[in-house]
Amino acid sequence: MPDKTEVNLTDAVVKKIEGAADARFRQVMTSLVRHLHAFVRETRLTEAEWRAGIDFLTATGHKCDHKRQEFILLSDTLGVSMLVDAINHQKPDGATESTVLGPFYVQGAPDMPLGANIAEGVEGEPVYFSGKVVSPDGTPIGGATLDIWSTDGAGQYDVQRPDGELRARGRITTDAQGNYAFWTVKPVSYPIPVDGPVGKMMLTLGRHPYRPAHTHMIVAAPGHETVTTHLFVKGDPYIESDAVFAVKDSLVVDFVPHEPGVAPDGKKMDQAWWSVDYHFGLVSRTQNAAA
Amino acid sequence: MPDKTEVNLTDAVVKKIEGAADARFRQVMTSLVRHLHAFVRETRLTEAEWRAGIDFLTATGHKCDHKRQEFILLSDTLGVSMLVDAINHQKPDGATESTVLGPFYVQGAPDMPLGANIAEGVEGEPVYFSGKVVSPDGTPIGGATLDIWSTDGAGQYDVQRPDGELRARGRITTDAQGNYAFWTVKPVSYPIPVDGPVGKMMLTLGRHPYRPAHTHMIVAAPGHETVTTHLFVKGDPYIESDAVFAVKDSLVVDFVPHEPGVAPDGKKMDQAWWSVDYHFGLVSRTQNAAA
Repeated sequence: MPDKTEVNLTDAVVKKIEGAADARFRQVMTSLVRHLHAFVRETRLTEAEWRAGIDFLTATGHKCDHKRQEFILLSDTLGVSMLVDAINHQKPDGATESTVLGPFYVQGAPDMPLGANIAEGVEGEPVYFSGKVVSPDGTPIGGATLDIWSTDGAGQYDVQRPDGELRARGRITTDAQGNYAFWTVKPVSYPIPVDGPVGKMMLTLGRHPYRPAHTHMIVAAPGHETVTTHLFVKGDPYIESDAVFAVKDSLVVDFVPHEPGVAPDGKKMDQAWWSVDYHFGLVSRTQNAAA
Repeated sequence: MPDKTEVNLTDAVVKKIEGAADARFRQVMTSLVRHLHAFVRETRLTEAEWRAGIDFLTATGHKCDHKRQEFILLSDTLGVSMLVDAINHQKPDGATESTVLGPFYVQGAPDMPLGANIAEGVEGEPVYFSGKVVSPDGTPIGGATLDIWSTDGAGQYDVQRPDGELRARGRITTDAQGNYAFWTVKPVSYPIPVDGPVGKMMLTLGRHPYRPAHTHMIVAAPGHETVTTHLFVKGDPYIESDAVFAVKDSLVVDFVPHEPGVAPDGKKMDQAWWSVDYHFGLVSRTQNAAA
């Protein structure tokens, strides 16, 4: 057997995985090995750089726990998450577009009644979201759930706080006419966490770490494709330069300012507040399979 | 600004890192982003596969500690480590070739006198290594150090044992004539650790996890390039199929069997033993720079 060289090594590795029982796994791993090796050859990667890469990946893994996903942050900041999104979610007209999940989603947010304030006691300016969940043809979808989360008014997620209590998170279900409504706080633009390896990478790359203000939601209904998305605040200074490339034009919405007074749900507001009116479009599973 | 699509996203990410102050970092990261995105596009990576990748990297990071380096194991098994080696170590004739460091090197092995047994009390068949450390032209190099480690006779490294004591590790220094000698145990072929994510990947790829038997050493001398290498046992059944692609023909050596009797250093052996005679060639720093 000839010695492995820069020229024959890649084929030798690929040949070793020809025996994988799962054809798709074989395909993905073959492509991964070829691109990884091409990267090393193209850059003439030094041993010190290789070691820095090992140390970076190790530190990224060590930063991950049940409340922090540094590898998702890495994928997000290198545009990989949005590329996977673009490949997998070609939505028809009338369907709400998807964007990144991000590293701050937590399962198990509390179910709350229609119109509830999901951010009771959280600092920030009040905002009233309302609208419908509908099919692309406009048919209302009753029993759809919105799993909502965002920063507080200071740009911090609950899981970034030391007390660990869930805040500014909740699940709302549409009524039979597809209506939803909830109160929360107006999100603000914020830096992705820069206390870990990914933050250090961003700064070394000369990139700012900011994301434009947004409210996250996962919208789901039986028989329909779940959509993971955000609504972005129109006019935010980082709309054009999101650190994770997640802005889509259709997701940038007006946050309408209001003076103190009576809100559409009859609530008496003694401070200024905002409102967002947005219809979410969900594709039925059969509909998109046929498209 | 147009929405990010599969087509324009990669350029958008690359454009964001044009401001990196370090030109080499910019070059490496640009190449990494382009190849990573090409891999995702080529495979049409699904969201479930992306998530599996995130979980795999996270588990790999969590498996790393001060005695276990699962990312190096990943790099080794995907042939990346040997590719970096091939690119960085083009050795002239007469110089000992390099190979992977592997995940089991530990700094701080004890200094021992010439001829010492570095594996006192370790199970396994005794083997006597001797020879010289020389320049490629044959000039002996005094004061060179060999930092040696290997499995015991059962195929296990000390750091894989629960007690954590250093075993079958030691540092030997050549005399003024470049001579070295030490006793240890004959290495045996062994599986790379399969209790972590990388072992699971190997099995799913249909690959056996075995490495051919070898003794590791890092050979260093002032004014010379350090070489990280192994000596492999000729005739081992895995010589042609090393799980980490690290075998080079020049590093496969005869382990010569001996009946009980007197060893070359005068030691009386009441059991069968082995010997290896090998000269390590070290390139001076100036020599290789000129090559």
